[in-house]
This record gives sequence, structure tokens and C-alpha cells, in this order.
Amino acid sequence: MSARALMVELGDRAYPIHIGAGIVGEAELYAPHVSARLAAVVTSETVAGLHAASVEKALGHAGARTMRIVLPDGEAHKDWNGLERIYAALLKAQADRRTVVVAVGGGVVGDMAGFAAATYQRGVPHLQVPTTLLAQVDSSVGGKTAINHPLGKNMIGAFHQPVAVIADTRVLDTLPPRELAAGLAEVVKYGAIADAAFLDWIEAHAEALAAREPSALAHAIARSCEIKARIVAADEREGGVRALLNFGHTFGHAIETASGYGTWLHGEAVAAGMVLAARLSARSGRIPAGHAERLAALLGRLGLPVKAPTLPLAMWLELMGRDKKNEDGRITLILLEELGRATIVKDTPARAIEDLLAG
Amino acid sequence: MSARALMVELGDRAYPIHIGAGIVGEAELYAPHVSARLAAVVTSETVAGLHAASVEKALGHAGARTMRIVLPDGEAHKDWNGLERIYAALLKAQADRRTVVVAVGGGVVGDMAGFAAATYQRGVPHLQVPTTLLAQVDSSVGGKTAINHPLGKNMIGAFHQPVAVIADTRVLDTLPPRELAAGLAEVVKYGAIADAAFLDWIEAHAEALAAREPSALAHAIARSCEIKARIVAADEREGGVRALLNFGHTFGHAIETASGYGTWLHGEAVAAGMVLAARLSARSGRIPAGHAERLAALLGRLGLPVKAPTLPLAMWLELMGRDKKNEDGRITLILLEELGRATIVKDTPARAIEDLLAG
Repeated sequence: MSARALMVELGDRAYPIHIGAGIVGEAELYAPHVSARLAAVVTSETVAGLHAASVEKALGHAGARTMRIVLPDGEAHKDWNGLERIYAALLKAQADRRTVVVAVGGGVVGDMAGFAAATYQRGVPHLQVPTTLLAQVDSSVGGKTAINHPLGKNMIGAFHQPVAVIADTRVLDTLPPRELAAGLAEVVKYGAIADAAFLDWIEAHAEALAAREPSALAHAIARSCEIKARIVAADEREGGVRALLNFGHTFGHAIETASGYGTWLHGEAVAAGMVLAARLSARSGRIPAGHAERLAALLGRLGLPVKAPTLPLAMWLELMGRDKKNEDGRITLILLEELGRATIVKDTPARAIEDLLAG
Repeated sequence: MSARALMVELGDRAYPIHIGAGIVGEAELYAPHVSARLAAVVTSETVAGLHAASVEKALGHAGARTMRIVLPDGEAHKDWNGLERIYAALLKAQADRRTVVVAVGGGVVGDMAGFAAATYQRGVPHLQVPTTLLAQVDSSVGGKTAINHPLGKNMIGAFHQPVAVIADTRVLDTLPPRELAAGLAEVVKYGAIADAAFLDWIEAHAEALAAREPSALAHAIARSCEIKARIVAADEREGGVRALLNFGHTFGHAIETASGYGTWLHGEAVAAGMVLAARLSARSGRIPAGHAERLAALLGRLGLPVKAPTLPLAMWLELMGRDKKNEDGRITLILLEELGRATIVKDTPARAIEDLLAG
């Protein structure tokens, strides 16, 4: 085992992100948070058979009593029914405010377990053990929790920081290739919005990342988490700079909602969304068109879709109009000022989006 | 109009409680919070016909656009379905993060609107316009929001402070007598746990309060809010002293849950619960038995039930075992050290509760 730890600096809610190979079974990483408590492991059907037992064993060694709550797989179940399953299991076990919710799974499990922890008895601690690349580099870090509503993705949720994140690169060995690529989309995002040198590095290591070389993955995760941790520490509740993390997401969420949750993986929709946002950045004169195509080419090499589905324009505008970044019905977008630097743009005219989508 | 304002001192989340006769229509009390925003008025069927229009008119004068969301009356509807009604209406109106949720109603409306505000798009501001005495002296102040779960009252919720509370004594004119009495139960609670002189004052003014004399009500509301504001400022998230506000509530919640939500009003269940807690305080040697009976007599004079329903002991223990104050299955109770001073007692043996309930 080789672990390193980053800190998300949030004052009395600061917490570590542990990154390493094989660390999911290390009791000492859990012990400070779960000793002599009930630890409720929330996981999904697929992940339950792969990693839940290792985590529970480590929790037991760390001095916790454990219980397991298994959710159905997939974004389609990130809704009230799934949440209710967690609440009912906690209540039946007489879980109290000292109970720690331990999310073992991908972004869906992390979001639901985190939101359940934010709201069970008005808030209990939670610990994130992300088992997908996307969750390791993005959704497990930063305290955003949510469920979907039939009228919009992630519309119901809370900010609730975890007490720790444990990101084990070895659990990625069992990840389906499509999900690995979806996680790499978010890795590319960090380069695009915040670090041109990191984007260069990703281009140079695209094949190593796709082949899951442990050292390449560990670097990609650590650098992504460093960038995210810095942005979250500067703006926990998304009053400003945190919105930059939504590069590609306004288009991406519209794709996900229009296609029905689960048809497109989140990272896939974000990849196609980043291509649109980069091309809009070029059309509005912020970056050369070649830079947008360079981003598209990298995403394509990583096995990601770069072309959004064909939707009626009215549907695009309607779905993008529901984005949480909007104010008073005006669409807010994250655009690139250059590769490695992004900006928040309010008031993009519907006409510009129409022209973009018309090709 | 004569208004006074108390502050709940919570740093950058400090907020005023305005108390006065006829102030529900004063635009200037709303203006700092709603100008140029969408104000979503959440109310109940009964209250909609009484006070919603005045509030909406004031909101309009304060520069807000308004929309109205009407919930069915009663604690039985303080559940996911009611919450979903709020979410759906907000999403259909494309409400964004600048939207202010305005709760106009009793404790049920305040809890649901507050929890919806805490979780819609991960949190929007809310303003409380309590229209019952109970909501004015208790539930609208302090940021506790929640819905009920079939397995326990207020089990799902969040801490989310309002931006202001507007408590108009004149709206109490239309309150049914049973609901007035239920609010007075919480007024008595503040005297019992924190202010013996206030308890004396309540005893001297019991008839004036029951007759809704405006000056008596205004004093009762202001003193209750002062005590609550002080305790909340000292312990916002109930890590310690805030639990004292739960005097009578552990027994009370069990009564409410066992009887089905809505059969007993919350304040009625708390009244019967306070009598049990006071008698347990006497049995454990903390206060003279006469003091417990003095409290019971006062509650009786105010028209409140002082005798809990007959439930099987196992049901009492099961329901009390789910209380949010508990740790590791041990029942935590608030008991009196004297009239005017309360304490948190962990580890009351089931046997002591059994003896108490056996009479």
C-alpha cells in the first residue's frame, strides 16, 4: 500500500482525501471517524459484490458496528425511492446522530448516501469510498449531494462535506471501460479549466490512462483532486468560482435529462457538453477554433462521445433554462478564455446557442 | 402597527424576529430579503384564505414577483408528498437560487417550506411568517426544518436558518382555541426550563392569554422568542444546551407517533409529555412532587391535556428509543432541576419509565 493524503481546507470541516493502491482495506484510515459507532455502508448491487466486504472488514477492525444498505444500480434510481430505502433502513436499525454513513460506490451511491447523511435526523457524518474514477476525481469531493427530480437533474440536495474520502486506485481494475472513460472526461475538465500543463500531460498519457497504468491513474486522480479541493476551499457553496467546475455541464445535464437518466453516463454527457462549450468559446472569439478541436480530439482518443444527440432547439433551451447556475431565467455558461482557464458567462443569447447547435 | 425586533445572533446568519400587531402587511419588513426576486409563498388550504393575500400584497410592494403553493392542512401531510408538491411547483416556475421561499402558516407549513428551501437546488433563502402561536414562539425560530417519516416524527430534515421571522399577533385572532392552547404549551415550556419568573407571569396571566389579550400575547411571544434565540445562538446544531428545548418532547413525540400524526396537536402532546417529564423529575428526587403538579395545574388551566394516552409499555420504549437525542440506544430525557431550570439526563433506566407510566 502506498497512500498519500490531500486536505480539503474548510476550517472546522476540513477533511483528508486519501489516494493509493489497496487502501480500501486499511482500518487506520477509517478509525478516526467510526470507532465505537454504527457505520451504515451504503452501496449498489454491483459494488456490493466487489468491495463492500473489504470496507466492512476494515470498519470492523476500526471499531465500528456495521450494517449494509444496498441500492439498485444506476442514475435512474437516484431518486426519492432510493433515498427512502436508506432512511427506512437507518430508522429500523435505530441509527442515531452518531451513526456514520459510509458510501461505497460511484457517483450515484455517493450522492444519495451523502444526501441521506445530510438529512437523516438533520445531519449525520458521512465518509466517501468512491469506486469509480468519476467519483474519485469529482463527485466524492466537495460536499455536493443530491437526488434527481423528474423535472431536473440534481435539483434536490444539500451541501454536506464528508469526514474523509478514501480513493483506492486498485478498485478501478474492475471498472467497465465505458465508466473509466467517463471519469477521464472530468479529469480532462480540470486541465481545460485550470491547468494547461496538466492538459498536456493527459494528452501525453492518454493511452496509459486508458490502459489503467496505476501510476498514471494515481497522478490523474491526485492532480484532479488538488484542483477541485482548491476551488471548493475558495467557494464551498458555489457563490462564484466553484461554478467553473461546471464546464460542459449545462449542455451535459440537458443531454442526460433529455435522454432519460442512465442512457448517457454523466461523464459522457459532460464530454459532449465540453466540446459544445469549447466551440461556443471559439465562436465568441475567446479561443482559436483549433483549441476547441484539440479538446475534442483528446476526448475522442479517450473513448468519449464528442457529438451531442440531436434534440429540438426548444428542448435544449428549456432544459438549459433549468440549470442551477441561472439567475432570473438567463442562461449562465462556463466558457474557456484559453486552454487551462475558464470564466463564468451570464446572458449568452439564445440565438448564439441556436447557431452553435445548428452546427 | 407597533413592531419590535429581536435578533437571533448567529454571525453571518443572524436574523431578526419582528413581533407586532398588524405587521404581516408591512412591505418594509420583507423588502430587504425579496426585492427583485421571485417569492414563492408556501401556505396551507386554511391559511391561504386568511392571510396569504396580505403577505403577497406586501411582497409585491417590496418589489418581488410572487407565486403561491398551497399544501393540504395538517401534520398528516408533513411528508414527502407535500414536499414534492413544493419542488414540482418551484421547478415548473423555473425558480432559481435567488428565489425566496416564504412560509405563511403554522408549524407544518414552516417545517415543510423550510426543508424545501434547505434542499431546493441545495439551498435557497426562506422567510417565516408564522400564523399560529406555536409557530411564532417555537417552530419558526431556530432553523430546524423537517418532514415526518412513517417510522418517526421529524426524522428527515435540515438546519436552515430563515432570513427573517415576521410574527403578527393579530393573525392569532382567527386561530381555533385548541391551537391557541397548543401554542401556550410551548410558552409554558420556556418558563419551566429557563425562567421561573416568566412561569409566575404566565400563571398570573393565564386567563388573559386564553382570552387573547394582545399585550399579554405580545409579551408571551417576545419572552419565548428571547429565550429560544439565546439558546439557539449558543448551540445552533443541538450539540448540547439546545436539547433543553425538547423538554416534554420525547414523551410527546411518542404520543404523536402512536396516535397517528394529527390526532394530538404537537403542543397537546408536549403538554402531556411535560407533565410526565416533571413527574419523573420529582420521582428521581430533582424537584418536589408539588412542583410537577403546579406545572400540570397550569397546563390544565390553559385548556391542555395533562394525561397521556394509555399505550403498551413496549410501544413507549420503542417510540422513545427512536428519539434523535439518543446515543447508542440509551434514552436521553430533559428533566427539571427546579421550576425554571432543566438538564439533560442520559441513561434513564427503562424501569424508571415503566414505573412512571404505571402511575
